[in-house]
Amino acid sequence: MKRIFNFNAGPSAIDLSVLEQAKAEFTDFCDAGYSICEMSHRNKRFEEILNTAIADLKALYTINNDYFVIFMQGGASLQFAQIPMNLYKGGVAQYVDTGTWTQNAIKEAKIQQINYEIVASSQDCAYNYIPSDIKFSPNADYAYICSNNTIHGTQYKSLPKTQCPLVVDSSSDFLSREIDFKNIGFFYAGAQKNAGVAGVTIAIIRKDLVYLAKQNVPFILRYSTFVDKNSLYNTPNTFGIYIFSLVLKWIKKQGGLAKISEKNSKKAEILYNTIDEFEGFYLPFARKDSRSMMNVTFNIKGGEEIEKLFVKQAEENDMIGLKGHRSLGGIRASIYNALNLEATQNLCEFMREFVRKFG
Amino acid sequence: MKRIFNFNAGPSAIDLSVLEQAKAEFTDFCDAGYSICEMSHRNKRFEEILNTAIADLKALYTINNDYFVIFMQGGASLQFAQIPMNLYKGGVAQYVDTGTWTQNAIKEAKIQQINYEIVASSQDCAYNYIPSDIKFSPNADYAYICSNNTIHGTQYKSLPKTQCPLVVDSSSDFLSREIDFKNIGFFYAGAQKNAGVAGVTIAIIRKDLVYLAKQNVPFILRYSTFVDKNSLYNTPNTFGIYIFSLVLKWIKKQGGLAKISEKNSKKAEILYNTIDEFEGFYLPFARKDSRSMMNVTFNIKGGEEIEKLFVKQAEENDMIGLKGHRSLGGIRASIYNALNLEATQNLCEFMREFVRKFG
Repeated sequence: MKRIFNFNAGPSAIDLSVLEQAKAEFTDFCDAGYSICEMSHRNKRFEEILNTAIADLKALYTINNDYFVIFMQGGASLQFAQIPMNLYKGGVAQYVDTGTWTQNAIKEAKIQQINYEIVASSQDCAYNYIPSDIKFSPNADYAYICSNNTIHGTQYKSLPKTQCPLVVDSSSDFLSREIDFKNIGFFYAGAQKNAGVAGVTIAIIRKDLVYLAKQNVPFILRYSTFVDKNSLYNTPNTFGIYIFSLVLKWIKKQGGLAKISEKNSKKAEILYNTIDEFEGFYLPFARKDSRSMMNVTFNIKGGEEIEKLFVKQAEENDMIGLKGHRSLGGIRASIYNALNLEATQNLCEFMREFVRKFG
Repeated sequence: MKRIFNFNAGPSAIDLSVLEQAKAEFTDFCDAGYSICEMSHRNKRFEEILNTAIADLKALYTINNDYFVIFMQGGASLQFAQIPMNLYKGGVAQYVDTGTWTQNAIKEAKIQQINYEIVASSQDCAYNYIPSDIKFSPNADYAYICSNNTIHGTQYKSLPKTQCPLVVDSSSDFLSREIDFKNIGFFYAGAQKNAGVAGVTIAIIRKDLVYLAKQNVPFILRYSTFVDKNSLYNTPNTFGIYIFSLVLKWIKKQGGLAKISEKNSKKAEILYNTIDEFEGFYLPFARKDSRSMMNVTFNIKGGEEIEKLFVKQAEENDMIGLKGHRSLGGIRASIYNALNLEATQNLCEFMREFVRKFG
């Protein structure tokens, strides 16, 4: 079997060992005589998968008992709406605008007519950096950031310290590094980048924020509904939670988040080094201090035509998913946890060769 | 490999041929060198899967171009909230209450403070029947029913004719029989009974109902968002849609909905016949005129103790999922499309044997 190098931004690469385990037991889960896909979410075995995933996630992030882990559906895009519904208390919600995904979050806040403020933005430079020294109000209902911007390839080196609850969309750098949860109120991610398949949203919510939703918030959109029923109020994405549980075991086997982070830094380093080595030909998009360890964005001198050629020739060399987001163009290499060093080295080698031919 | 007889109410049985195909190509989709789970939802191949599924579904139900097919997440429980958000126009919404799922739908309508009426209910007899001769107002914004009640085991023999748009929760009898769409406005189902894995909601919406949502409805919860972007506004449950596409192909291979319906009737007939043969020992829950072809509910003379024994001995005979819903107790045999005649015959045989021993 040929195994491709998958640089997709999401859904994206999953480690082959995870896929192989899922495949091996796909029609017969642990000798049960049926598939995990056919298992009732009320089955004790499924609850065990779910509870083990919660425990493993809390252990990996060293999260204490002030937090609950819940599984929802609908992706980050549904969270953009659920967050103001659940966390806005009538004061002010403060947002940092770092690109498409925070803009979409702000759009939903606006639709709900809550009182919100954009306290910092990098729109002035086409979102190529993460604002620094952001001044959040200590009394805000919540402070909202997106820790890694998949489209623009920018990332907070460390999360801001706030006195109010910090809300973090960590969809594209979830489980990629260690996080200090001290001031975090709500931390969430879609699974389809670093945590498995599309259709599961994993959220970590601090106890004091669970029951804030007003009476007019739909019951199924209240975080309390998921906390109170351990994410089994209605049928969750059982297969997605199962794959998530396998991914967590794989991360543990890799040595946990410190090790994963080390590997991710190494991958990003060699890739950015290659870009910098040929600066002038490869044109990095993100400002150096804001470079993402997950999504590496750049343009190529000569523009669209040669970028198309780059993507095409990369595909011919078994590297897929390198086309930049349609809103930004250029090249984007997503180097999530499951994209290994070999794949990254392969891309760097290809980039050098490409310079030799067309630089 | 042992293959169990799976009578689960959902997630539930999937035909082995579907599972085997998914397994065979799980780590290498069509020689692409990666898994369907790792494929971008923007990939042309994925769009092809999605569009073929839409075409196949429309062909199976013979739905004309007045309707769109969309894929959402969150299950029927999220639809309970989305329906009033999207279809209520300020007049009156009329609901028929036939058990837990319609009650949950009504609960969400109430939370949204829309003007709703319960025009018929079978609560007077513990929901053991489907009301007949229901009087819907011709001018209602919509008329809401649940076509099959998974918990109580009741089902509309045919859907009511209304002058206003009929909204149908078909979660547990989706794709189990032919449907006349003439007066249907919105028809939806979670996939985890007859259409694959949990985490996908399939909806069929009539053109004139797409753009009714008011400005204050969250963007991600508007049906128009899904129609306008062909369900690709954000990342959908790609694996779930893929499995759904395989299930549709399997149904086509079975001869379509007429054939499927015939098989389902046959299965239900032999199971209800067995119950009736030993009436007095097996105590059918649903009234004869309202019996579900999908979920067969009954009690056993002697109550909880012997029902537990029934479930235990069935499990020992490779039949799982027969315990009734926790809110109702008793026995429930879910005989969805993928649960074949052999499994049903097996259960009937076991039931006869059980009477001989304990009757």
